[in-house]
Amino acid sequence: MEFAPKDPDWQARVRASFSAQKFMAHLGAELVHLAPGAVDLELKLRPEVTQQHGFFHAGATTSIADSAAGYAALSLFAAGIGVLTSEFKINLLNPARQQILLARGRVVKPGRTLTIAKADVYGLDDGTQVHVATGLFTLMGVSGVRD
Amino acid sequence: MEFAPKDPDWQARVRASFSAQKFMAHLGAELVHLAPGAVDLELKLRPEVTQQHGFFHAGATTSIADSAAGYAALSLFAAGIGVLTSEFKINLLNPARQQILLARGRVVKPGRTLTIAKADVYGLDDGTQVHVATGLFTLMGVSGVRD
Amino acid sequence: MEFAPKDPDWQARVRASFSAQKFMAHLGAELVHLAPGAVDLELKLRPEVTQQHGFFHAGATTSIADSAAGYAALSLFAAGIGVLTSEFKINLLNPARQQILLARGRVVKPGRTLTIAKADVYGLDDGTQVHVATGLFTLMGVSGVRD
Amino acid sequence: MEFAPKDPDWQARVRASFSAQKFMAHLGAELVHLAPGAVDLELKLRPEVTQQHGFFHAGATTSIADSAAGYAALSLFAAGIGVLTSEFKINLLNPARQQILLARGRVVKPGRTLTIAKADVYGLDDGTQVHVATGLFTLMGVSGVRD
Repeated sequence: MEFAPKDPDWQARVRASFSAQKFMAHLGAELVHLAPGAVDLELKLRPEVTQQHGFFHAGATTSIADSAAGYAALSLFAAGIGVLTSEFKINLLNPARQQILLARGRVVKPGRTLTIAKADVYGLDDGTQVHVATGLFTLMGVSGVRD
Repeated sequence: MEFAPKDPDWQARVRASFSAQKFMAHLGAELVHLAPGAVDLELKLRPEVTQQHGFFHAGATTSIADSAAGYAALSLFAAGIGVLTSEFKINLLNPARQQILLARGRVVKPGRTLTIAKADVYGLDDGTQVHVATGLFTLMGVSGVRD
Repeated sequence: MEFAPKDPDWQARVRASFSAQKFMAHLGAELVHLAPGAVDLELKLRPEVTQQHGFFHAGATTSIADSAAGYAALSLFAAGIGVLTSEFKINLLNPARQQILLARGRVVKPGRTLTIAKADVYGLDDGTQVHVATGLFTLMGVSGVRD
Repeated sequence: MEFAPKDPDWQARVRASFSAQKFMAHLGAELVHLAPGAVDLELKLRPEVTQQHGFFHAGATTSIADSAAGYAALSLFAAGIGVLTSEFKINLLNPARQQILLARGRVVKPGRTLTIAKADVYGLDDGTQVHVATGLFTLMGVSGVRD
């Protein structure tokens, strides 16, 4: 689907907001792709993001999925409207034991109040790709919150 | 509801597994309550766990909810059965801008293959408590995975 | 939790709207309890609501859960505001093979735009009660839609 | 994605099971497409499936989405394994006020114990198509239950 951003500065705004998410820096997530309604984040495997079996923790997988979906939504918001996650659901499809996680957030339906987005997370090793998780997210545009 | 653990060493096993989750240490989460089918985790506010507005990141909130629910489930598993999150859904009810987050994981229905748990997250300040999030989790017992 | 309805005619409004849901009549659902932020619906087992094994169809279970949650939300809305389900998630905990299903919708957090509710569904036989399903619902208040 | 059915009689088995769902007949749903891991159901608008505003009831929309996802999963199961919905989540994207609802169930990840499927529901009028709902479903294969 093709989306038209309402804010001419949407790219700068999304990048600035992502940079302001200290949690993303703490995890080590990077913004690797940005288009209207579409944001990809990447996270490298290191001990700090693992659970007890050495795989990516479901919370880490989910966190980058949530930020990817949230920024996909924010990319379509008007200037002065911030983004909050209202709710989401995620299915963990395969163990996340690859070297890199790629979370692809995509807007499914933009809206005045609520925007619905999905995120798919893939685990990448040399030449292989595993579908690690898929989720649905409801994002809310809020005018009192700057992004 | 009253649950009877199957593994006499359930407490030691849950604590050891939680300690092995490097992601929980990286976040700064602590296990503050442990009973059969019930686990509480706490997370203090610090910049490393915040989103762009200075609140707890939805991913941090969700991560401790997921671990609380997962360990509530694990507390009832037989020895030799590990726990994986199959899926979950979470509603973020109020901005998480308090000093401490408390995630309370509780088993709703234990099962041979799937255990359903809920988690409620509260934001705590001096004398006040805000219901920050509520979620439903499906946990899977897996025999090939040690916990 | 105690909730205060905003519309003095909330009871009549909820009952009228429920009666106008032809789908509920088609299923055979009845409104058996109504309080501020709380609605219970009941559905009797008959072939028309079963799946291939003779149990209540997950869709029937879910439909009364959704209506119970939706009317729990509507009971707290101001006059002139209608209710739409934005999204929900439900876990089916046990086979629904009892004589009666009781869906209990309860508001978790009322809000100006979004109201979060839960619904628990129980299967009732003579003297026994089984927890059949538990779900979380996001309801939206919409002013252009009459209820 | 291409899936290979394990049961040579998968088509007959899915059709027989669908025909045995009296709830689907009561709604008026029809099975209009069947392929390995893919099932489409259709439901015509009539008063019996509407909510208070005359739109398709969220429960009706969800019911055909659930059956479409469930039969998409069943199409890949071995003979003798029945299907039960473990849980699902659905987002209602647009009002369902069209003449026909088309629910497209698709397997995302088949598994020995759990199969993950998605379902998208579209509202169809002459020449137009609206994305009405999108959902994620966890289906369980159970050997004690015949399908």
